[in-house]
This record gives sequence, C-alpha cells and structure tokens, in this order.
Amino acid sequence: MPLSREIHLVRRPNGAPTPADFALVERSVGDAADGEVLVENLWISVDPAMRPRLNAGQPLDEAMMGMALGRVVQSKLAGLSVGDLVTSRLGCREYFTAKADAVTRLRPDPELPLSVYMHALGMTGFTAYGGLLEIGQLKDGEQVFVSTAGGAVGSIAAQIARLKGCRVVGSTGSEAKAAWLRDVAGLDAVINYKTQPIGEALTAATPQGLDVYFDNVGGDHLDAALTRMNRLGRIPVCGFISGYNGGGAPVSNLFNIIYAGVTIRGFTSLDYLPLRPKFEADMTAWLKAGQIKYQETVREGIAATPGALIGMLAGENSGKMLVKLAD
Amino acid sequence: MPLSREIHLVRRPNGAPTPADFALVERSVGDAADGEVLVENLWISVDPAMRPRLNAGQPLDEAMMGMALGRVVQSKLAGLSVGDLVTSRLGCREYFTAKADAVTRLRPDPELPLSVYMHALGMTGFTAYGGLLEIGQLKDGEQVFVSTAGGAVGSIAAQIARLKGCRVVGSTGSEAKAAWLRDVAGLDAVINYKTQPIGEALTAATPQGLDVYFDNVGGDHLDAALTRMNRLGRIPVCGFISGYNGGGAPVSNLFNIIYAGVTIRGFTSLDYLPLRPKFEADMTAWLKAGQIKYQETVREGIAATPGALIGMLAGENSGKMLVKLAD
Repeated sequence: MPLSREIHLVRRPNGAPTPADFALVERSVGDAADGEVLVENLWISVDPAMRPRLNAGQPLDEAMMGMALGRVVQSKLAGLSVGDLVTSRLGCREYFTAKADAVTRLRPDPELPLSVYMHALGMTGFTAYGGLLEIGQLKDGEQVFVSTAGGAVGSIAAQIARLKGCRVVGSTGSEAKAAWLRDVAGLDAVINYKTQPIGEALTAATPQGLDVYFDNVGGDHLDAALTRMNRLGRIPVCGFISGYNGGGAPVSNLFNIIYAGVTIRGFTSLDYLPLRPKFEADMTAWLKAGQIKYQETVREGIAATPGALIGMLAGENSGKMLVKLAD
Repeated sequence: MPLSREIHLVRRPNGAPTPADFALVERSVGDAADGEVLVENLWISVDPAMRPRLNAGQPLDEAMMGMALGRVVQSKLAGLSVGDLVTSRLGCREYFTAKADAVTRLRPDPELPLSVYMHALGMTGFTAYGGLLEIGQLKDGEQVFVSTAGGAVGSIAAQIARLKGCRVVGSTGSEAKAAWLRDVAGLDAVINYKTQPIGEALTAATPQGLDVYFDNVGGDHLDAALTRMNRLGRIPVCGFISGYNGGGAPVSNLFNIIYAGVTIRGFTSLDYLPLRPKFEADMTAWLKAGQIKYQETVREGIAATPGALIGMLAGENSGKMLVKLAD
C-alpha cells in the first residue's frame, strides 16, 4: 500500500494558470486487485493539450489527466509482470492501480533512451507525423511553415518536413530555440516572433508561398500564414496555444482561403490511429539514424508538475517538457 | 458599329461601395472581325464575388467583370450563328465583340425561362451544388446550416440539402425572406439574424448539432456555427460577405475545430469543374419537377447595375439579383 502524491486541479484558472490553481495531495494506493496492476510512474508528459482541459474536461479535486510512463510493481493481471513498462493517460500521480484497458505495454527499443517514448516516439511525435502527412497531406518538396517549432510537436513536425525534402520555416520565441532550429534541426529559416513582426517576417521567409502550415498557435500566426497560402494549401490545426489563456485569439484573414481553395482542418491523433505502426517504424528508424533531433526540458519530482505546465505555456521549455519521478 | 453603354469602376470603395465609385460610359463597339462574334447582352448577373474584386482584381476605368448572357448579333466565327445564345464573363456592357475562347454557347431547355441560366442553372447554382456535395461532402440525412439562405447561392444550397433528406436551418435578414424560406423552400428552421442573436438562435435551432455549415458570411455566423459542429463536420466557405466592406469580420471560435476534427475549406466553382454536366442534368430535372424554387430581383437597364450591386450587398434582393438589358 504505497503512499502516492498526485497533482489536483483545485480551481479553474482565470487567464494564465497560477500555482494556486493546483494542489499536491497525498493518497494511499491500494494493492493491485485481481485483474489489476500497481504502477509506479517514472515520467509525466507535460502537454499543451492540458491547458484547455483546465477550463473544461479536467474534473476538480482529482489527479490531473495526462500521459505517463511507468513500471509495473505488482501484478494480478495476466500478460503484465513486475518490471514491465506501461503508458497510461492517468496522469499526474506517483502510483496508481489500473485494469488492463487503462494501460498499454511499452516494449522500448533498447538503443533509444526511455524518455523518447514520451515525445518523439509518443503522442507528440505521432501528432506531428499524422498531422503533417495525413491531415496536411504533405508532399515531397513543398513549402512548409511550422509554428512553435521549438516545442515538442513543432520541432518534430519541422524535421519530418525537412526529411521529406520540403523547405521549412519555423517560428519560435527565443534566440536560443531559434539557434537550435537553424543549427541542429536544419530548418531553412527561423522567425523569432518576439523580436520580429510575424506577418512581415513570414512574408520575407516564404518567397514561394506556403503549401502547408502546421498550426499550433492560431491568432496572429494563423493570420500571417493565411496571407501566404498557395493554391490548394492545407492548414492542419493541432492547437491554438495563443487562445488557451483566454482572449480568443481572433483570426481576421480567413477570406484568403476562398480563391486559393485552402483547407483548414482541426485534428487530434485519434483521427488517424491506423497510422500508428507505420509511425513507430519510421520514427524509430529516424531516431536511430540521428535524422530527428530533440530537446528535453526535465523537471524533477511530482511537486514540480504545476510549474512545468505553467512554464511550458510561457515558452520556458526547449523541446519536450517532462517531469521525471523515478529511474 | 453599335454604341454600347458599360459600367466602369472609377475608384476603389472605402467601405461600402457608393454610386460615385462607378460611371456609365458610352463606347462604340466595332463590327466582328474574322474569328469573332458581336454579342448583345440580355442579362447581367450581379454576384457577391464582384465585391472583393472592387478592392483588387477589377481594373479601374474598364467595364466591370461579371457573368452575362447575350445573343449573337453578328458572327464571323465558325460554330456560332446570329441568334445563338452565349454566356461570358465580360460583364457589365450592352455589346461586345469576342473570340471563341471568351464565350460559351448556351443551349437552353425550352421548358425553362432563360433567366435561370443566370442563377439556378448558372454559376450560383453550380456553386451551391458543388460546394455542398463535393467540397462539403454532404451525406443524406445530415444536419445542415446555410447562411444568407435567402440569397442566390444560399437558397439553392438549402434546397439541395432538403432534397438530400437533410434537416436544414437557414439564416436571412428579413421577415419576408424568412417566410419564403419556410413556406416555399421548405426549410426546417429559419433564423432572422437582424431580430435574433445568431449564436443563441442557432443553438436553439440545431438540437442535433451541425454536420455541414455552408458559409457565405464568415464573422458572427461562422463563430456561431463553429460552436455547433459535430465530429468530422465540414464547413465549405464560398464567401465572407460580412467582411467584404472592410472590418475583416474576425472569427474567435476556431479552436472548436480541433477536438471535433472539423474541416473548413474555401472554394470556388473552378475547384470541381468536372461536376458540371452532372450538375446541369440534376438541376434541370429538379427545376422542371418544381423541386427547386427560386426568386429573382430584376433591375432594368445597364445604368441600374451599380445600384443593383450596392443593393444586393445591403440585402435588398430576394434570391438572384439580375439586371435585364433586352429581351
């Protein structure tokens, strides 16, 4: 019966979330019952998708939902043994018990660090892969713009587009991230939207217009991209981070989609689950070959989770924001 | 060598167009040269698409572009004879000469009035048909919302959706148009956006949400529809009339597309030209069977054209706005 600390949402944020919106709560977790496993979480994935759930979807006074990677420490479930690794969506807690349908066995490639299964080989990588290739219908050699290109999803999307022979422009909010995108990830052009007006900068960076805009931001970035779209361009939208803290991030240039025949499509990775095996094969190969680079920003201990989420929404992360709970 | 009067754009409108933005100009038109026809226009089609061209695309001090239907009065072109009917995009003029590539022979069905080839059987009908069935991928029995349902495109789109067994809600700006949509066109619900807040009214009118929103408006109508979209809903966008006179008509609810996996696609009828023969066959049959109703608002004489355009943008038309030049 381990004691488990977990992060609760205790009130809905008014604008940007603050530490007082969360609480660290200690719970005793029962032993695994028949048909259950007891899991110790090792890694918590801190994702932009958590933010809209704070307004609606995340129950108050319960452990925050989210992706986690853990190790089975007790098993009364056929097919899972002590020491096996599992992913879950049960989120921000140190220990939990669960039945078979709440955990997925992970068989990591021994040549890769375990944490990549929380980003490049996890939901964020799959979001980038399917959003670009399936929802965005990316073709080799196209003109591509990725916003929040320094983030977990954006950095993978930008590099997949590069691997497909596309010319890729990324936007990010710091010089350090811009330098990484240029020098390590190999983007063709990078815009620091905090020092350059996004509209002018994007126009200058896209002399051949845009075929695909991978949108994580909405608002001013989407408005800028809408003025640059080539005929039959596609805009897969996986997040509107500019609007998550309120204000709505209105978009004014939608009329540009009419004559260019542009498609804007919202998506989550649930929209193309059959692609998962192909994604895992492709991404594993790319990572082993060093063709996809990544960065991690790691905070330590369950108590660091609210700060990690608040920091990620403020752009403090380079690449994937993770909380490490145990080895 | 007939004298021809034509409508020129003489300055770009600042906000809503005014009569002073246009001029009536008299020109002498030469006889048809070898390989040309001389055409007398009978009908001019007044379309919302003319409005954005006033800001960009329509040259100053030239005849306004637009769809017209005319009769050949002189021919030195093989395949066209005096008396043949032709459509063109050469617009707001009484007479013109043209080569073969600028005119399309029209063979009207003798059971239908000629003017329907300017709307239900013309570009506006084709816009409604392809926008709904091809771009919007409408399925039988779906939940549908059409804005400017009293207009030329909207009234056809709404009735096609009814013919496909859909539940159809329309928005319009007058009680007279609302009554026509309910009582003649057979819509399931009609919203008068001038007397009801569009957001609340649409919520009340769509208890089963929306699968397709056929958007002619943008702005507040699009924002309202975005909150009602069912999973994998589609929003074909053929016009943003709310933004044409300036102000941009910002949209704030785009984030709703993400979890619902909604597709927004801009289009013009050029995006599905191969559908044209099927459209003509379907629409001819529907019109002959009385299954598609229409209204026309007819102004007389070339000098009435600017007022017809200004009036249509202000919602003065019921159904298709036309200018009749000759019998």
